[in-house]
Amino acid sequence: MDILSVVKEYLRFPGISADPAAKPAIDATADYLVGLLTKAGCKAERVETAGNPVVVGRYNADRDDLPHIVVYSHYDVQPVDPLELWQTPPFEPVIKDGKLYARGSADDRGPGAIPIVALANLLQKNPDLPLRVTFTIEGEEEIGSQHFPDFIKAHREELSSADFVVLSDTESIDKDQMAITVGLRGIIGLEIRLTGPNSDLHSGLHGGPVYNPCQALAEICASLHDAQNRVTVPGFYDGVGVPAAWEREELARIGENDEDYAKFLGVDALHCHPGYNAAECIRFLPTLEFNGIGGGYQGEGSKTIVPAKAFAKITCRLVPGMDPEDVFQKVAKAIRSRVPAGIRAEIVPMQKCKAYFVCPPGRENSDPMMNRALTNAFKAAEEIITQEFGKAPIYMRDGGAIGIINDFKEICKLDSLMLGVSLPDSRIHAPNENVVIDILEKNVKTYEAIFERCAKNPKSKA
Amino acid sequence: MDILSVVKEYLRFPGISADPAAKPAIDATADYLVGLLTKAGCKAERVETAGNPVVVGRYNADRDDLPHIVVYSHYDVQPVDPLELWQTPPFEPVIKDGKLYARGSADDRGPGAIPIVALANLLQKNPDLPLRVTFTIEGEEEIGSQHFPDFIKAHREELSSADFVVLSDTESIDKDQMAITVGLRGIIGLEIRLTGPNSDLHSGLHGGPVYNPCQALAEICASLHDAQNRVTVPGFYDGVGVPAAWEREELARIGENDEDYAKFLGVDALHCHPGYNAAECIRFLPTLEFNGIGGGYQGEGSKTIVPAKAFAKITCRLVPGMDPEDVFQKVAKAIRSRVPAGIRAEIVPMQKCKAYFVCPPGRENSDPMMNRALTNAFKAAEEIITQEFGKAPIYMRDGGAIGIINDFKEICKLDSLMLGVSLPDSRIHAPNENVVIDILEKNVKTYEAIFERCAKNPKSKA
Repeated sequence: MDILSVVKEYLRFPGISADPAAKPAIDATADYLVGLLTKAGCKAERVETAGNPVVVGRYNADRDDLPHIVVYSHYDVQPVDPLELWQTPPFEPVIKDGKLYARGSADDRGPGAIPIVALANLLQKNPDLPLRVTFTIEGEEEIGSQHFPDFIKAHREELSSADFVVLSDTESIDKDQMAITVGLRGIIGLEIRLTGPNSDLHSGLHGGPVYNPCQALAEICASLHDAQNRVTVPGFYDGVGVPAAWEREELARIGENDEDYAKFLGVDALHCHPGYNAAECIRFLPTLEFNGIGGGYQGEGSKTIVPAKAFAKITCRLVPGMDPEDVFQKVAKAIRSRVPAGIRAEIVPMQKCKAYFVCPPGRENSDPMMNRALTNAFKAAEEIITQEFGKAPIYMRDGGAIGIINDFKEICKLDSLMLGVSLPDSRIHAPNENVVIDILEKNVKTYEAIFERCAKNPKSKA
Repeated sequence: MDILSVVKEYLRFPGISADPAAKPAIDATADYLVGLLTKAGCKAERVETAGNPVVVGRYNADRDDLPHIVVYSHYDVQPVDPLELWQTPPFEPVIKDGKLYARGSADDRGPGAIPIVALANLLQKNPDLPLRVTFTIEGEEEIGSQHFPDFIKAHREELSSADFVVLSDTESIDKDQMAITVGLRGIIGLEIRLTGPNSDLHSGLHGGPVYNPCQALAEICASLHDAQNRVTVPGFYDGVGVPAAWEREELARIGENDEDYAKFLGVDALHCHPGYNAAECIRFLPTLEFNGIGGGYQGEGSKTIVPAKAFAKITCRLVPGMDPEDVFQKVAKAIRSRVPAGIRAEIVPMQKCKAYFVCPPGRENSDPMMNRALTNAFKAAEEIITQEFGKAPIYMRDGGAIGIINDFKEICKLDSLMLGVSLPDSRIHAPNENVVIDILEKNVKTYEAIFERCAKNPKSKA
């Protein structure tokens, strides 16, 4: 199987999970994956959920005696707006300068295709590979993986029999420097909806005594950070720890500096917390971020109104030690306490996900009880990456959230091996998303090495 | 001519001046008015401007010896969004419970039709009415009357020969209590446009060190009022005076109280400045109002980004003593000084208009030099209104702006007689705009009385 041909097919489906109108494309993507997994040598099926289907592909499903690897990826993608900033249409993959451009190329269809191709290649050479593999490919990651926990629970026995989860939905450093992610920030989301007067009002005939909901929104939002850009919600930082020394050292290998990072973003200044550089802020500290705000007149020109309504969409990134429900309650309480008289507030909870951390073998604080298959997989990955890219992988945390990593941990006691495929300039969630083709191709070898190494060693798990 | 039939025709044109796509409807409205004025007995024409045409209707244009009245109104209307809150389509006039519902019914097509019908009626009875009347009906009032001053300047000699301007683009109290407006707040407008990173960013992979433009916008907007809801822009209140005792007494005749007003708006609290009730705040004090704010993801559900951009549309209502350009500069300076590092700001100036005040005859501070025609018009209006509605009109200021009132004053030295036709619950600029049909009909008599009284007295002006 040729990875590039597979990915180019896979990227043509406009399966945006946030858009109800894209449901047919979601279904078509799932059907495509069933076909691809079957071709690769698996028994594949759509498993329906209360939301979008999970595509499951099983190889050696009846062999409890073999090492068992669960592979995770997601086939849904982010919305494409603002569409006018895309240089090529988001669902027509285009190759330029060694990169493949399309929505989902880096998050997560390109990376998600790699293990399928890797298994197909190994089975071509050895149709009796003594390994058990279960692919679980979901369609709601970009909207919070709402129904994937139900899927995991429904298949708890099957999945819990695995040794570990492997996936590529995290970032590497550059085209020569791969990263293995050992931690993820969690997330909570909420929407503030404010209502002032019962209708938009003429700002001349009514402006003055009426509290403007846009003003109230601005005041509430502005109150949530202090002058050092720290979150002012009482108790927000409770439980937030300081990272181990090796983590900071490993992160320093990236060679990133704040000045270059600011240039990359196009800003003239950053706002890091005292004692943390930008790379550390993103990985070791929580945030409270405004993803969108709105209220009143949005069109061209002027409309002289006191608006009736305003909203803010907020997400908080969480680090280990923070409980999502607890943080949500604290943030909601802080917001409610800051709503002025004359304004009604509704706070709508959205996604919730705990942070995650696994210490790689041989590091300070690593888990002596880590099972043999995962230990072997970590080692195989380190060896083949060092050989193919000329540099050892960097073990680091990632700023993003993959809720299901935590679900696999909580429900099935499974740790995850996260191999980064996308890069910092892959423009994930933004226009002109892209992936480096060479990284896709070399990571096929990484997955082949992991599968082969695990297949060579007997199962260690009870 | 029947006022109701005329208005129902007039309201069918979707002439929204803020919407460039509505230009054909603007033209159709202007053409309709040329026909209507001609039918009423005027020589009518479209006068093209750099924007939308002004419709001019002249009766006795060659008679410099006669008292000369300029009539003003505007045929353009506000946008109709949010459309889903309209109970009937905005451009299909519907009569319900003695009211006529449609966009423009109260602002300003219904009121604007009255003097045309009144003149038509008088000329029916007396085709030689010894009066000169010039109708000037513009099409850009709702976007700041940008080109009307050019029109006034181009017709300065003709218009300056008039005795006064009469118009109905202000509010009365209720269906029995008419108001004559003697003051208007001015206005300035501006838009803040903030840019942070050069693209929307994944809030997990980048959230933390990057200043979020929605946060910066919230902080800037929140900083513009203090806890007493007073504007914090340095020097904002310079030149703002205290109103004369008779003004407060006259205003008290409305019988409005803050509790009822809050109920009418559907809010549980008002935020009046100390020493002013709501009615006084609206008429005697300036404001800084957020007409719209926006930034980042506006759709359904969640999109985990750090947005690249955010904006706020702001207008300030001004009172006598404030200079619009001066206030704009002060507000822009205050905003610029509050933009954090890492964020770029653009401040786009929009409309600008001075406040206006004319003291009615016989009141403390009234002008002994007021010309005979205007003095007669004030008196005729007071008499006929008292007779038709059973109560003397209330002389009061209005919270809204009519920029052209100030232009007529500055360019042509003309004062204005402002007869209120719309009511506080006419839902001007909002969904379900409406006008009381009985008020339309009785005001035809008011205009007839003014025209007749002026026609009976020789011109007093040089």
